[in-house]
Amino acid sequence: MSDNKKKLRIGLIGCGFMGRTHANGYNRVPNFFPELQYQPVLQAVCSRREEKVKAFANQWGVASYETDWRQLIARDDIDAVDICTPNHLHAEIAVAAAEAGKMVLTEKPLARNLEEAKSMVDAVSKAGVPNTVWYNYRRLPAVTLAKKIVASGKLGKIFHYRANFLQDWTINADLPQGGDAAWRMDVDVAGSGVTGDLLAHCIDTAMWLNGGITEVSAVTETFVKQRVHLDTGKLQEVGIDDACIFHCRFANGSLGLFESTRYARGHKALYTFEINGEHASIRWDLHDLNRLEYFDNAVDSDVKGWSSIHVTNGDHPYMEKWWVPGLGIGYEHSFVHQVADFLKSLETGEPCQPDFKNAYETQKVCEAVIESAKSRSWKGTEVEIG
Amino acid sequence: MSDNKKKLRIGLIGCGFMGRTHANGYNRVPNFFPELQYQPVLQAVCSRREEKVKAFANQWGVASYETDWRQLIARDDIDAVDICTPNHLHAEIAVAAAEAGKMVLTEKPLARNLEEAKSMVDAVSKAGVPNTVWYNYRRLPAVTLAKKIVASGKLGKIFHYRANFLQDWTINADLPQGGDAAWRMDVDVAGSGVTGDLLAHCIDTAMWLNGGITEVSAVTETFVKQRVHLDTGKLQEVGIDDACIFHCRFANGSLGLFESTRYARGHKALYTFEINGEHASIRWDLHDLNRLEYFDNAVDSDVKGWSSIHVTNGDHPYMEKWWVPGLGIGYEHSFVHQVADFLKSLETGEPCQPDFKNAYETQKVCEAVIESAKSRSWKGTEVEIG
Amino acid sequence: MSDNKKKLRIGLIGCGFMGRTHANGYNRVPNFFPELQYQPVLQAVCSRREEKVKAFANQWGVASYETDWRQLIARDDIDAVDICTPNHLHAEIAVAAAEAGKMVLTEKPLARNLEEAKSMVDAVSKAGVPNTVWYNYRRLPAVTLAKKIVASGKLGKIFHYRANFLQDWTINADLPQGGDAAWRMDVDVAGSGVTGDLLAHCIDTAMWLNGGITEVSAVTETFVKQRVHLDTGKLQEVGIDDACIFHCRFANGSLGLFESTRYARGHKALYTFEINGEHASIRWDLHDLNRLEYFDNAVDSDVKGWSSIHVTNGDHPYMEKWWVPGLGIGYEHSFVHQVADFLKSLETGEPCQPDFKNAYETQKVCEAVIESAKSRSWKGTEVEIG
Amino acid sequence: MSDNKKKLRIGLIGCGFMGRTHANGYNRVPNFFPELQYQPVLQAVCSRREEKVKAFANQWGVASYETDWRQLIARDDIDAVDICTPNHLHAEIAVAAAEAGKMVLTEKPLARNLEEAKSMVDAVSKAGVPNTVWYNYRRLPAVTLAKKIVASGKLGKIFHYRANFLQDWTINADLPQGGDAAWRMDVDVAGSGVTGDLLAHCIDTAMWLNGGITEVSAVTETFVKQRVHLDTGKLQEVGIDDACIFHCRFANGSLGLFESTRYARGHKALYTFEINGEHASIRWDLHDLNRLEYFDNAVDSDVKGWSSIHVTNGDHPYMEKWWVPGLGIGYEHSFVHQVADFLKSLETGEPCQPDFKNAYETQKVCEAVIESAKSRSWKGTEVEIG
Repeated sequence: MSDNKKKLRIGLIGCGFMGRTHANGYNRVPNFFPELQYQPVLQAVCSRREEKVKAFANQWGVASYETDWRQLIARDDIDAVDICTPNHLHAEIAVAAAEAGKMVLTEKPLARNLEEAKSMVDAVSKAGVPNTVWYNYRRLPAVTLAKKIVASGKLGKIFHYRANFLQDWTINADLPQGGDAAWRMDVDVAGSGVTGDLLAHCIDTAMWLNGGITEVSAVTETFVKQRVHLDTGKLQEVGIDDACIFHCRFANGSLGLFESTRYARGHKALYTFEINGEHASIRWDLHDLNRLEYFDNAVDSDVKGWSSIHVTNGDHPYMEKWWVPGLGIGYEHSFVHQVADFLKSLETGEPCQPDFKNAYETQKVCEAVIESAKSRSWKGTEVEIG
Repeated sequence: MSDNKKKLRIGLIGCGFMGRTHANGYNRVPNFFPELQYQPVLQAVCSRREEKVKAFANQWGVASYETDWRQLIARDDIDAVDICTPNHLHAEIAVAAAEAGKMVLTEKPLARNLEEAKSMVDAVSKAGVPNTVWYNYRRLPAVTLAKKIVASGKLGKIFHYRANFLQDWTINADLPQGGDAAWRMDVDVAGSGVTGDLLAHCIDTAMWLNGGITEVSAVTETFVKQRVHLDTGKLQEVGIDDACIFHCRFANGSLGLFESTRYARGHKALYTFEINGEHASIRWDLHDLNRLEYFDNAVDSDVKGWSSIHVTNGDHPYMEKWWVPGLGIGYEHSFVHQVADFLKSLETGEPCQPDFKNAYETQKVCEAVIESAKSRSWKGTEVEIG
Repeated sequence: MSDNKKKLRIGLIGCGFMGRTHANGYNRVPNFFPELQYQPVLQAVCSRREEKVKAFANQWGVASYETDWRQLIARDDIDAVDICTPNHLHAEIAVAAAEAGKMVLTEKPLARNLEEAKSMVDAVSKAGVPNTVWYNYRRLPAVTLAKKIVASGKLGKIFHYRANFLQDWTINADLPQGGDAAWRMDVDVAGSGVTGDLLAHCIDTAMWLNGGITEVSAVTETFVKQRVHLDTGKLQEVGIDDACIFHCRFANGSLGLFESTRYARGHKALYTFEINGEHASIRWDLHDLNRLEYFDNAVDSDVKGWSSIHVTNGDHPYMEKWWVPGLGIGYEHSFVHQVADFLKSLETGEPCQPDFKNAYETQKVCEAVIESAKSRSWKGTEVEIG
Repeated sequence: MSDNKKKLRIGLIGCGFMGRTHANGYNRVPNFFPELQYQPVLQAVCSRREEKVKAFANQWGVASYETDWRQLIARDDIDAVDICTPNHLHAEIAVAAAEAGKMVLTEKPLARNLEEAKSMVDAVSKAGVPNTVWYNYRRLPAVTLAKKIVASGKLGKIFHYRANFLQDWTINADLPQGGDAAWRMDVDVAGSGVTGDLLAHCIDTAMWLNGGITEVSAVTETFVKQRVHLDTGKLQEVGIDDACIFHCRFANGSLGLFESTRYARGHKALYTFEINGEHASIRWDLHDLNRLEYFDNAVDSDVKGWSSIHVTNGDHPYMEKWWVPGLGIGYEHSFVHQVADFLKSLETGEPCQPDFKNAYETQKVCEAVIESAKSRSWKGTEVEIG
């Protein structure tokens, strides 16, 4: 690797599923984005369990490890702290990292709730440190292309936005909650169920593509009411939402519709969105992540139809970095792209979006959704995006 | 045609789009359902405009015509009155027909509102005449197959039902409202916009497949607020809903999600539904009406996937009547099937579903949806389906 | 029905699957093509088995029946003879009909072999009678749209044409050959297997869209070598081709590739074709017969893709006759369209294509294919289409 | 990285498109296959152009570089030579490497022709060095799953195998031939056109899944007859095949059909294959590389259909190494898997298939195809696979 690059020494906290996607992102960027001035270095990784963190460090080529995240933050040889822990630790770690003058990268959702999120925005703002949240789907080439098309104005006035994120992995009353393996099922750790885990992605993409959501009307459901908690071994009430549906209004006058569930048999990770505009429409599906579908009403009437764009050409977003037309990339590449864009942002001084401030707006919508479902009424979001 | 068949003399009121689909249904049944004891005869057709009704009678082989529907009802040689008029006339004609002792068939939605609908149910009930409503999509083979699969119990406990009906034909501020051509845009004639026109279909199918909807939370939107009225030539407020979204709860504990709009650029008649059960899921799309998609979780893990069933085999619903495997049928066949089933119901004495009583339950949901949107709150439906 | 129409009195010979599709075509045309000057009348139907032909006449509203096709041809009240018999009778009946001065319509393939086909072309030519062959797929709206696009020159120079017709209904060694039910398996009756039954369709469409095929190189296979013959009750050698593949050259310099089989498990009637031109490509699939896929290289690079055209708009071929955008039609409509076009051809005096002369060119290719497979060498076709 | 791993020091020759895919493969394996005993080390890379090879080494973290491949082979610190050069150098380098006692990995096709290929097989055989050829598509999870299904016997007797590989990147008469950029267009360097470049992949997969191809009948075409040669600057005859079609017989009695072209407008890299067996069928498409379609005739008749398997579960081939169900991987992963399998083969002593010997069989079919096209006759392949 090049010696004339600036090193960005990463301290990774958490070595679960997201720890792996991030580590892979850092490791691959130098091979595919050689033009960047910064080069990420996996300096340290942290997890409470020494056995696990040691194996992780060994596997991913991380130079050292810690078992206490405060130790990691205290180290001088760390430039940026990357938070891949369960949600309940995001705020505490992020605030501490910012106060220590580190750059902060956090997995989504920003936090368990708006209050925690606010403390994080304030901390990075006060510290003036670069920060970003891993709403990674923005950086799949087909999704970035959607943004480009929307930004071009080709769609005209927008009437509808709809998105869903459907899974089926919790359709089993015997699945536990809590612990390392099932913290997403534990409301105290996760903050919410599908709302923060899945809809947060949909909301982030939606407001990026279509502007602010102003008010929401939601319903949630918990199909299995009690599950054994791994920490206590006891059957305990389930506090998360297994499913959440909401409709909403956007600031631009369009109607929105969102649904997420972990009880949609047959769907593993069906994140789809569709935008219907006056002149054109767009839709996308995570299960076919290299494709974008596009309907252009300006095409001659008799040959007009939904076009399936295989987003693998050199002139498609990010694709000049990869292979040749027709050869698709995968899920993990979205993280590689976010690493690259974060490094680039250090060169330009422009925030790498979504930064904490932007992710805070998404958090507002999540909070309003949960409140709306509880109160069975419409809720304003106070989102500050036009 | 066979002389030993009982003739069912039809009086068709209205000769627009639906008049054509019904006339075709009556004309084709004898060729494809020779086993039926009843044979429909197009005895009379009625429309206010003589020129038009005469041409219709000539084209479709109708024996006579009328220009006043009361005259048609008064005739002795009519056994069944089939109402294909705009919605505002359904109740008045149906009640008069029932009082005259005629069987009554009505296009959907049953009526403009619940009050009208009630009068119709009462009238046919009092008269004791056979009656049915043309929620024709139930009788597309793929949809009937969905019903068969649901009824088999293969899906297990149901968690989610979702449906939409997306169109794009009114994205044009210059489109008028009212008159013969645009009565669907005139709230006084149509009763509502997409709710009665499109969602009524979705609700009918949904409650047939998944039982009663108990409460709803809706939002509607009218994107173009004023349109020229063809009767007055003046710009008038638009009273219909251009778009309607609602989520709901079913009596069986599942969550429902419905959306309809005429502003979804690129979709002509995208009626889709999906049911997610514990063990299996089903989905369907009117744009590919001969297919049903099915996910069966019991399949071996490594080859499990969504199966695309081309519903064209001899053992698929209705298909032994048509061609050979692989050769699809079209939209119009749903009406042929409904005629056949109505005739069969006269043999068996069992009502041809949905009858007025059943369609009244659908009307309750439509009414609750409109009210919910107006009041921005949840509404109970008082549906009497389990 | 209108009195001021000219009656075209049809004598239908054969009342199997094709007898039904044709009868339906005649019965429906008056309802959907009221502007035509001619009106078909099902005057007589003929089949050797009285029970069957009587039931058919009753079901389809045919005025009379015969059990000897010579009697039918001899009748004065028949204007046009429509041949729906197994292939071995096409030539004899067609020649007799032409000699009797009747118009002649024949199911495909024109005949069992080129010699028979030649006699038919000569007969109708000598008699000067209108004639047509039911290569019905030309008249599915999506296929007709393909022709329109090709004719517009949008594709530029053509490089490739490929088609296949895949079925799976004979994968069963216990299936018999011969008799009424399985005459398609009997080479003496059918002339050939998939070549005449299925590839003939593909070749007809191909030469219509892409011009003459000049030479072919083929392989055929008979997977089950012996089957019980229904006429003899004995196990006899199977003479038909179960599968046939050939590549070829077109007069325009493009390469062609064709495959057909009845041993493609999972495919019921998968007729697909694709044309690749310099500037654009087209593909179609009978299993989704209302769609045409189109790739236009002139579209902006980043949104370029295969477009799925739902061929159901009023400005699509034949579709103004049917319903509204988004509502598909079926297989049988191709026959309705061919009846309408034949009637129209009587008005204009232009042959209804493919006429016998044109279908004779298709027969040349079929014959060359069978010969090529036998001799394991390339064969010229002597096709006289540019 | 782990110190207790055995290092496998790679010398990479060639740093074009394939040099990148291989380098990425070596770099990623340690992160995803930590259980392997061997760890690849990018020890040296070689290319004639110093500027280019230096940049490559820098970007991919290669420890050193050479500009003469003989120097690289002569080095003591290289365990395995990986050949990513244009085809004309495969044989010479491979033979030299084997003679020097190095393991040899070669990009496909094995060589320009059978004679060269033979020398390579002999060399590695004589030297007794591990060897493999990068027919990478075998190692996409969906393709490996296809192999697993075939091997299970679920398909029963096989009737048909078909594959194509369609591209459109050379539809431009101004494209040159030869030089670094366009060596695939130069027959002296490439050996052949689509036959060696694309069909070789299809043939490798086909014989892996369906056994040996015994005889072929082919046609080739060169649409643009002359192109400027980059080495001479002159318009020279084009010797490669732009398109190639062949049908064939497999040793198991099934029929095969193959097509490849670079003139199929709208297709970038459409590699598809389909196998039709007595009981089940399989198909796959490189444009949707995470999916496998499967038709199982044993499923209940009314819900039988083609199943779309999203091959992203933990129990799918290779997928436990990656993310979670529903999240796809990309083209490049096939190379990562081949590196992992090659390393594994060093542990087990079993050859990493396809080895040179196996790839030689594929070369036989390629040679027979080219000869068949030239002689316009069937050619036996003498393939020694059952």
